[in-house]
Formats: sequence, structure tokens, C-alpha cells
Amino acid sequence: MEITSVSNELVKETVRLQQSKYRKQSGKFLLEGYKAIKEAHDFGITLEHIFVQNEKSKEYDFAKDIVINTNSAVLKKLATTDSVPEAVAVGVQKIYNKNILKNSKKVVLLENIKDPGNLGTIIRTSVAFGADAVVLYGDSVDIYNPKIVRSSVGNLWKIPVIHIEKQEELEKEFNDFERVATLPRSANYLKTYSPEYPILVMFGSEADGLSDELIKFSTKSVKIEMAETVESLNLATSVAVVLYQLFI
Amino acid sequence: MEITSVSNELVKETVRLQQSKYRKQSGKFLLEGYKAIKEAHDFGITLEHIFVQNEKSKEYDFAKDIVINTNSAVLKKLATTDSVPEAVAVGVQKIYNKNILKNSKKVVLLENIKDPGNLGTIIRTSVAFGADAVVLYGDSVDIYNPKIVRSSVGNLWKIPVIHIEKQEELEKEFNDFERVATLPRSANYLKTYSPEYPILVMFGSEADGLSDELIKFSTKSVKIEMAETVESLNLATSVAVVLYQLFI
Repeated sequence: MEITSVSNELVKETVRLQQSKYRKQSGKFLLEGYKAIKEAHDFGITLEHIFVQNEKSKEYDFAKDIVINTNSAVLKKLATTDSVPEAVAVGVQKIYNKNILKNSKKVVLLENIKDPGNLGTIIRTSVAFGADAVVLYGDSVDIYNPKIVRSSVGNLWKIPVIHIEKQEELEKEFNDFERVATLPRSANYLKTYSPEYPILVMFGSEADGLSDELIKFSTKSVKIEMAETVESLNLATSVAVVLYQLFI
Repeated sequence: MEITSVSNELVKETVRLQQSKYRKQSGKFLLEGYKAIKEAHDFGITLEHIFVQNEKSKEYDFAKDIVINTNSAVLKKLATTDSVPEAVAVGVQKIYNKNILKNSKKVVLLENIKDPGNLGTIIRTSVAFGADAVVLYGDSVDIYNPKIVRSSVGNLWKIPVIHIEKQEELEKEFNDFERVATLPRSANYLKTYSPEYPILVMFGSEADGLSDELIKFSTKSVKIEMAETVESLNLATSVAVVLYQLFI
């Protein structure tokens, strides 16, 4: 199959997936570049079609039934980065069941997280340090945002990411967990704390910190030791330090 | 003083500071927004002028001799972010003397680092975990890049950042230091390593890792424990975990 016009209907429909609204409606998302597409394919993510720069199409033989040969103009239109990738694919979002949490020992919770670059990095770190799941609580950025797909560097497929919106749900799922709030003003230093499992480690957004409701919900709190001249750490940095200390 | 035209000479000259080349030539840089400007001022960074949105100028009385009243059109032109800040200032770059390293106990070295967001975060983390200095070795992004000024969140003024280009210089400065290479394939796990001081902790770029010359220069190597399914961590994440473990 070949599409060379930027006003083709399938091209237009694919471009819409750059917007969160259309990703939500359709349950689909974008993948850009060989590495991201191949990894998603190998992890069993369903791909619907792959727009590929004409002369590169041989390299996509692993999914040749869905390859669409195209040109730079179309790829430029589909891409969310300044540099035009050789291929852009449409994938189907993976939805996890909350039941997974029942058998989890180490879970990371992020409240109201808005920065896609940060979230992708946190997912990558969570996989690296052996978390069993990541919970996005409250009002969070869409994990199929192209920036997250990029900054997670293929790790988005290696860990269940679960959205929870209501506190009752949270209480139900994590009733038996040690629930640790990471707070800048806790009296307990991270290095001296011995974790108990199953554990839920909770982080607020960089701008607002953890909400009062989650602080109340916690059974423990810890603070990262740091110089007094520094107000706070970058969120992805805090998560990395805490998970390394508690999970490894 | 008031400037309302985007084609004013001082405006044009200030806009040029968005480019690395002109920052290098002039030894100056840009600061955007109240918080960044006030912090730099309080840390003793020399400011040359501050373009301020007319109705906000009262808030810049701490430096009223150098305030230039202006409008949104000019600020939009000066700004490097999509959202227009209420003020943009021109600061004078701070140059540190290498002698500072003689009295340092904990130094972080970054080789060929190119991503400005990462570097700003690493500087913030280095301050938080008590590093005495950051060395940029090889071909590095300009630390007065507006993205770094932003992502360091005021911490750029709290730690000496020193450029070293040649290996002979590095050898001279760090001859007496324990020199630790952070490597994905080291046989030594980070958690089991006891640091000796003074210490230089070295990180390569995310794309290339540490160069052979720096690996040869090292006296020790460590690896961060992580799941085998993850190729690597984000650079700022690796730095945070290693510094927390070795410096705190």
C-alpha cells in the first residue's frame, strides 16, 4: 500500500492522534522511529499500520502486512518531533486490570502528574528498580502522550500503568499495604527507614506535593536527606533515589 | 527608562543572547521570570538590565536602577519559552577558578553532556547531595543555555561549574582523588562500595557512555543495580542515585 498525499483521510486521522482527546476516543496512539516501533511490536503491542519512508520499508518486514509506503512530507505531518522519523506507527493502547495490584509487592503512586518527560523517565526508573506497577492517581497526563512514549525508551510495555481516580478505590486496593508518603518535611530520613512489603510509595507533583488526603492515607512518611539550601529535587530524581533505596 | 519597540538596538542585542555563540562572545546570559531574576540577584550575580512588563516594575525595586519598562511584544521577542514571562534580565556569567578543586572533597564530572534539561537537573541534584563542584569535561552544552538556567531552578549559583577540556589538566587536578567511573558493565555494585575521599565521580553521556580515556583514568568503577530488562537509566537519574549513595 502507498500513500503520498498529506490530505489522505488515513493521514489526517493519524495526525489527530497527536491530541490527547483523540487518543482517548480511539484507544490508539503514535509510535515514532524504528526502535520504538520494533520494541512495541516485540512486546506484543497491536499495531494497526506503519507509515514508512519508501526506501526503508524492507526493514519493517516483521510487520509487512501493515506497512504503508510513504514520503517525507507525510512523515513530517505525522511526526511530533522536529526531526522527521523514518516511520510512524499507530498502536492500540494496552489497558491493565486492577487485579494485577493484588499480587504486587512494590507499587509506585504518582499524584496529579503533568509533565510528560518526567513521567516517561519515572516509568523507566520504576522498571529498572523492580516496581510491579505504577499507579497514576488523580488528574494525570495521558501516558500515551508521544513525549512519554519517547522518554520511557521502550519501558512503557514492561510495567502495568493503572489509573485510579477515586480515593475509595485506592483504599480498597491498598488496604493491606505499607503506604509511604515522600515528604520534604517528614521527620524520618530515607536512609534509616526499613521498608515493609507489600509497599506503596507515593509522590506528589513537583508543583503541589502530595495532597492532604494522601498524606492522611499514608502509614509512614520519609524524607530524602539533602542540603538545606535546595528547596526540592526534580520529581523524577526523587523517585529514583527513593526506589533505589527501598526496592533494591 | 522605557523601551517599547521590538526593533530597538538593546532589544536586538538581548535577543542574540538566546544563541550560544553570542553568550560566549559577550560573557552574558538571559534570565526569565521574577523568581529566576530575584534569586540570581540575591546570589550576587551581576545583572545589566531587566526588561519588565510595565505594571510589574514596582516588584523589581530591588534593582530599580537597571529596570527597563516594556510591553508584552518586546518580552515575547526576548523570551525563550512559549509563555511570555513578566520580565527578562541580562546577567553576567560567573567564571570559577580551577583552584577551587584543590579544597574539594566531592566532585562530579560529566563528559560530553549535550542535553540542557538533564544538565540543569544534575546541577540541582549535585547541590542537594553536597557536591563541592561540577566539572564539564570535553564537548559540553553551554551552562548558560536558558533551559539549564530554568531546569537548575536557581541552583546554578550555588555550586562552581568548571570546564576542563584536556586530559592533562584533568590529571593534574585530580591526581590525588579516588576516581570512580559509573559503568553499566562494572563488576562492582554501587550498594557494596565504600567511597574514599576526596572523590571524583564520573559519568558519560547517555548516548555514548564514558570514553575509554576516562575509564583508563579511573581508579574504581561501580554499576547501579537494576533489572536486566532495562538497557540503561536516564543520565540525571543515574547521577542522583550514585550521588545519594556516595555523598549522603
